[in-house]
Amino acid sequence: MTSELYRLSATEVLQKTTAGEISVQDYAASLLQRIKARDEAVEAWAYLDSAYVMEQAKALDAIPASERGPLHGVAIGVKDVILTKDMPTQFNSPVYTNNAPKIDAGSIMILRKNGALILGKTTTTEFAATTVGSKTKNPHDPGRTPGGSSSGSGAAVGDFQAPIGLGTQTGGSVIRPGSYNGIYAFKPTWNAVTREGQKIYALILDTLGFYARSVKDLELIADSFAIFDDVPAPADFNVKGAKFAFLKTMVWPSVGPGTSAALGKAVTLLRAHGAEVEEISFPEHLNDLPAWHATVLAAEGRVAFLPEYTTAKTQISPQLVGHVENSDKITRKAQLEAFDKISAARPIVDELLGKYAAVLTPSVPDEAPLGIQSTGSAAFCLIWTALHTPVVNVPGFQGENSMPVGISLVAPRYHDRHLLSVSQKVGEIFEAEGGWRRSN
Amino acid sequence: MTSELYRLSATEVLQKTTAGEISVQDYAASLLQRIKARDEAVEAWAYLDSAYVMEQAKALDAIPASERGPLHGVAIGVKDVILTKDMPTQFNSPVYTNNAPKIDAGSIMILRKNGALILGKTTTTEFAATTVGSKTKNPHDPGRTPGGSSSGSGAAVGDFQAPIGLGTQTGGSVIRPGSYNGIYAFKPTWNAVTREGQKIYALILDTLGFYARSVKDLELIADSFAIFDDVPAPADFNVKGAKFAFLKTMVWPSVGPGTSAALGKAVTLLRAHGAEVEEISFPEHLNDLPAWHATVLAAEGRVAFLPEYTTAKTQISPQLVGHVENSDKITRKAQLEAFDKISAARPIVDELLGKYAAVLTPSVPDEAPLGIQSTGSAAFCLIWTALHTPVVNVPGFQGENSMPVGISLVAPRYHDRHLLSVSQKVGEIFEAEGGWRRSN
Repeated sequence: MTSELYRLSATEVLQKTTAGEISVQDYAASLLQRIKARDEAVEAWAYLDSAYVMEQAKALDAIPASERGPLHGVAIGVKDVILTKDMPTQFNSPVYTNNAPKIDAGSIMILRKNGALILGKTTTTEFAATTVGSKTKNPHDPGRTPGGSSSGSGAAVGDFQAPIGLGTQTGGSVIRPGSYNGIYAFKPTWNAVTREGQKIYALILDTLGFYARSVKDLELIADSFAIFDDVPAPADFNVKGAKFAFLKTMVWPSVGPGTSAALGKAVTLLRAHGAEVEEISFPEHLNDLPAWHATVLAAEGRVAFLPEYTTAKTQISPQLVGHVENSDKITRKAQLEAFDKISAARPIVDELLGKYAAVLTPSVPDEAPLGIQSTGSAAFCLIWTALHTPVVNVPGFQGENSMPVGISLVAPRYHDRHLLSVSQKVGEIFEAEGGWRRSN
Repeated sequence: MTSELYRLSATEVLQKTTAGEISVQDYAASLLQRIKARDEAVEAWAYLDSAYVMEQAKALDAIPASERGPLHGVAIGVKDVILTKDMPTQFNSPVYTNNAPKIDAGSIMILRKNGALILGKTTTTEFAATTVGSKTKNPHDPGRTPGGSSSGSGAAVGDFQAPIGLGTQTGGSVIRPGSYNGIYAFKPTWNAVTREGQKIYALILDTLGFYARSVKDLELIADSFAIFDDVPAPADFNVKGAKFAFLKTMVWPSVGPGTSAALGKAVTLLRAHGAEVEEISFPEHLNDLPAWHATVLAAEGRVAFLPEYTTAKTQISPQLVGHVENSDKITRKAQLEAFDKISAARPIVDELLGKYAAVLTPSVPDEAPLGIQSTGSAAFCLIWTALHTPVVNVPGFQGENSMPVGISLVAPRYHDRHLLSVSQKVGEIFEAEGGWRRSN
């Protein structure tokens, strides 16, 4: 049984360590065994020191029961754009290979203090800013991408190599790997979680997010970051009698058969479980949201990468050089118009979303595409990043190639806990009846 | 003459080193001499290692003329909330006294690569977030505050201990010390300069800013950070025939006699030099901007200081504990309303400001107050921080106690270079005829 501990959720691990059934060292050893067995196929890790993991586990076991934190022994994979004091941070960039800053990001300070076991650093695309794949393969098909830019965290959690992963999203970098790897992904409301010590791409877009294989685990993490709503979320949300909406948004024409079928099935399942599901449309005057996102992204990227451009221009990708050199010739006027129009859209969209328990919308165009050169499209995610709303990718469906397909549940800003509560019940249905099963 | 090199502006230093008249070592030695002579009275530095400064100066002198950067030998004092790889960063907090992260902030990467001589770290209030004074005294009267939170940078530049200082502003922390120390202070448009490696207080407010004793020096720094407008600023702005506005804003009732007289004189001087000056009023529906700023500040501070609260609660000030514990009981609804109303105000205020060469408004209520326990009021600055507009504090006037009083010039977002160009000509008039002279 010990050899299968890696399959436990974070919540289950906490129960077992609290009950004295297992030690953190037992658990860590099982995870390391799993990683050893699977690393050649998946390559989710940018840095992992097994001996150091065991050393941390031993130190955690030595803490008296009364002094243990709420995340005691919860193992976490950290996207390699988030600073850690005891492991190098490399951003998948040659600029930082040899001079990795050794401090803890704000998020890591909180997780570590609460007892988390920081396993290692997970792969990313360059500075979490490009779509050029890292070495990581999709755990469900090594011929396919795990998505990006949070490639390693998504793959590690999808492959039982870690129960929790940290990701970041500026376009679709948390939600997309969530769908491709068949796991829950949670992008909280913008700035609900500190971004201290996390590489900047676009200040008004970048959001720290989380992966897990259960919503309960995401709630555990949300507790640590003191994410709360004005009205406490229902302890036991009831799908029956609840009202959902299905929102295609302006990018629906690019949807593939897998996602299209998943959404159809999702609506059918929710209705079968007694929910009402309306099809709603996005306000037409906001149809240019993707273009506004692109403008803000490039304009803010221009500022974010000037330090690397100035000091190591030949070592950053052409996309980032293009941002700094303003190759899209974005004027300040266009930048401000995009920034202000997105700002004005936020309360309008909040109001629309607020009429429903949650709004269903695609996470990705379809299953993870073939090949690991590209990490796929963020088209369905990026408007929600710009709008600052919380999003949860709920897994459960499968595409034409038996790969997982997830669906995004969206709620108004700062309805994060409400959204998690709804996602838990919806996820139970989708996972039981959606047709995709996580393999052993 | 060598002994007076410390009095030079950055622009003058560059001319002299380029002409081979002086070495960076000559210049650095003069600055260090000045600092040595004045440090007991002013105490502007949180960290300064004279031997290391001379080592850097020697290394800069060794760079062949053809390879020197645009800021070759320009000495810079760095507010101690901005990370430096070769000097400790302490945030005026016991939390970071012994584990200062040693990496360069994005701004420092750029400045250093361009040849700047990083002199040392300048004092700040705790995390640049409180108004509890550091040890630093106003160089023009040791019984008064230099302002805050960029206390040391303001005082050092005001006292000829450095030609350039880096500050940060979340409320009024760049502009206020500018006025109190009788120098130029430049808060660029929000996110026009990378904030990578600068402690977060409120993401949507925090702005890196700059001090100098001349606008030309600020333009030199703006060049390094690639700050540009859509329309290039006039090389030689003409006050004669230009149209200015004088804007009291909603906080005018708290103005003191020094600032009130300074603004009156400023208007008179501009008119005497052929400019038109209108008195305009702020849109009434935006009268709650200060309250919205306070709400956003507290709500974002709640997130920013959770890491320190979690790991070292007893070592952070009650104000920051209050943010994290939400002692103001700010709801998410109130937070979002404030955030969205500020967002909606930005294009409206831009349009108002855009009708003028620049808009004149108070920088501070009055001269630097007595005592160093409090760093003074940010009341006149904070709406501009929230509105993201560039602001320049222009010195030249004096209050009832012969202390400097500056005036803010404001322009629409991303009219930074325009504003600097206007500030230069306006500054020439104010400095010549305003009545305050920088002492020797």
